[in-house]
Amino acid sequence: MINRLADLPTPCLILDRDKLERNLAIMSTAVRRHGVALRPHMKTAKSAEVARLATAGEAGGITVSTLAEAEYFAAEGFRDILYAVAIVPAKLDRAAALRRSGVDLEIVTDDPATAAAIAAHASASGADHRVLVEVDCGEHRSGMAVESETLLAVGRALGPLCAGVMTHAGHSYDCRSLAAIEAVAEAERLAAVTAAARLRSIGLAAAVVSVGSTPTALHARSLAGVTETRPGVYMFQDLFQVQIGSGTPEGMAVTVLASVIGRRPAENRFLIDAGAMALSKDRSTAAAPRDFGFGLVLDIDGGRGFGEAVVERANQEHGIVGAPEPLPFDRLAVGTRVRVAPNHVCMTAAQYDRYHVVEGGDEVVAVWDRVNGW
Amino acid sequence: MINRLADLPTPCLILDRDKLERNLAIMSTAVRRHGVALRPHMKTAKSAEVARLATAGEAGGITVSTLAEAEYFAAEGFRDILYAVAIVPAKLDRAAALRRSGVDLEIVTDDPATAAAIAAHASASGADHRVLVEVDCGEHRSGMAVESETLLAVGRALGPLCAGVMTHAGHSYDCRSLAAIEAVAEAERLAAVTAAARLRSIGLAAAVVSVGSTPTALHARSLAGVTETRPGVYMFQDLFQVQIGSGTPEGMAVTVLASVIGRRPAENRFLIDAGAMALSKDRSTAAAPRDFGFGLVLDIDGGRGFGEAVVERANQEHGIVGAPEPLPFDRLAVGTRVRVAPNHVCMTAAQYDRYHVVEGGDEVVAVWDRVNGW
Repeated sequence: MINRLADLPTPCLILDRDKLERNLAIMSTAVRRHGVALRPHMKTAKSAEVARLATAGEAGGITVSTLAEAEYFAAEGFRDILYAVAIVPAKLDRAAALRRSGVDLEIVTDDPATAAAIAAHASASGADHRVLVEVDCGEHRSGMAVESETLLAVGRALGPLCAGVMTHAGHSYDCRSLAAIEAVAEAERLAAVTAAARLRSIGLAAAVVSVGSTPTALHARSLAGVTETRPGVYMFQDLFQVQIGSGTPEGMAVTVLASVIGRRPAENRFLIDAGAMALSKDRSTAAAPRDFGFGLVLDIDGGRGFGEAVVERANQEHGIVGAPEPLPFDRLAVGTRVRVAPNHVCMTAAQYDRYHVVEGGDEVVAVWDRVNGW
Repeated sequence: MINRLADLPTPCLILDRDKLERNLAIMSTAVRRHGVALRPHMKTAKSAEVARLATAGEAGGITVSTLAEAEYFAAEGFRDILYAVAIVPAKLDRAAALRRSGVDLEIVTDDPATAAAIAAHASASGADHRVLVEVDCGEHRSGMAVESETLLAVGRALGPLCAGVMTHAGHSYDCRSLAAIEAVAEAERLAAVTAAARLRSIGLAAAVVSVGSTPTALHARSLAGVTETRPGVYMFQDLFQVQIGSGTPEGMAVTVLASVIGRRPAENRFLIDAGAMALSKDRSTAAAPRDFGFGLVLDIDGGRGFGEAVVERANQEHGIVGAPEPLPFDRLAVGTRVRVAPNHVCMTAAQYDRYHVVEGGDEVVAVWDRVNGW
């Protein structure tokens, strides 16, 4: 039996495979021109089927944001995984179990005491941990300063376990021009390359020089000295990425399918069954040139049949939709299906355990699972 | 083997059963003084174990926000369930299946066409749907105006399927004084009672008069004419509810257990492994007297060992903690466990599939599941 969008229970998550594959091809081309490996960050998609598409023809492995993801992708056959959030000692047993199972798991730290704990864990357990030292390239989130003594202290504590360096230019999301993104990309590159050189200067191999965010991976002018990049959200795109020039409206591959559950013509508003649970409370576009509330409302075909309508309010299971122009209430009976393009697809997708996959049309060609939690 | 908080993988969700039971007792007492039934809204807890405690000694059934919840609680033995979000025709088959399985499921509409569709579905399928008509008491979200002709049209379309009326004073969350909450509670009561009287005036039974939100259920001066109330978040409390006077800091029963994953003493900041995924992007307290960022950071015992420290930024798996006073970095090694009290516990809890239950202390006495999704 063919399942169509109009038959699905709402709310649910729709993934357009055609758009996904176009987004993958654009990033692959952008990264190849630098001759570095693409290690896609699966924190957005959290799906083995998506990871298989994203790594087809690539040799760089994948990146994950939780050990639950690492374990899920390992069970799905992925053997080269970077867990790109700083490790704590209590998580080393799980990391070691993955390595023992044949996964080349890399972990991350920026902390001398943790580096010592990793080395001690390796000695005591026989685990051959591989560790990237995290440096800060201007995001001021995690990672130590490139020029700090701590960098060398962490490297020395790790010794042969030190596989290289990583950094993350999350501040590229604050950029509002191509020139600004290029500048952040260069700062990201320089931080990673410099940190690797410092570690090599004390005799460490530090072969891996890992950078990456979607804006910097797309727009870097040079990745000289870098070995891999780790963009993630490029696969799906969202309203925020489009606003900052990392994608186009046509590239948004993931939408929420919802039903009209109420009509308020006197207020030029209607309600849908996609509220805060279905969309998340992410308001990324509040800081972008255009604010889309909790998401842009599209018709069931993904078109702009409702003009500039956005989800203005999001209660737990109610999304309240408004628009600057009169809404077509003759096409908005209770039960009518709409789609919502999300502000920040990482957060929205995390509310679901599966994707309903289409290929441009309204036929559901597959259901792909996701891994959530930790 | 005894599991202690210090042994749990982070991030995870901690539920203090002692605090939960105190919160339940307070609401039970508040509602009993009016002689109305308590029909707790399980949209916050989404847990059968919590529902059993919340309904112990009560006869009012439960409220849910999704059909997935209705099906979960039905499977757990609950037989009196109000699905309090407006139904769409495509969901009537699932509703009918629940009724056929012996669940007294009530559904909701405010739409004449949907009312007609429900009646037609009942005729065609033999389903004996029970329907509450939703009216607006000032929230301006869902529900029709009490004095509207539409109210009677919906009632007539439903005929004997019309079991009564419901309304939701969600705008009580905007109140910043007891007097304001009392006024909203009276508007909520009056809207429901008036709507029921109008339906009765055209010969409908309309026996159910259902109201409810945590602030109005706690603070209503009169519920004359009301038959039941549907508060939900009172069970757990959160920073926002405390700010609006619906709870106390000591009543917050749910926290996120997290680990320190990074230290930035020069900036008086540290990082935890509870970011936007673990806390949600909810910023409810941004509109409250005090803004707690993405949550208030407590020590592992739930105490204020870190003063006024809050999660200032929330990236996907990184929470960035800052404080107005110098942080005690000697007690903040990487791996140190902390707890985070959430802004809005409905949203935070939804990121998890289980609760680790404690009874005031650090021993995990049980693990209770949750139902998420739709």
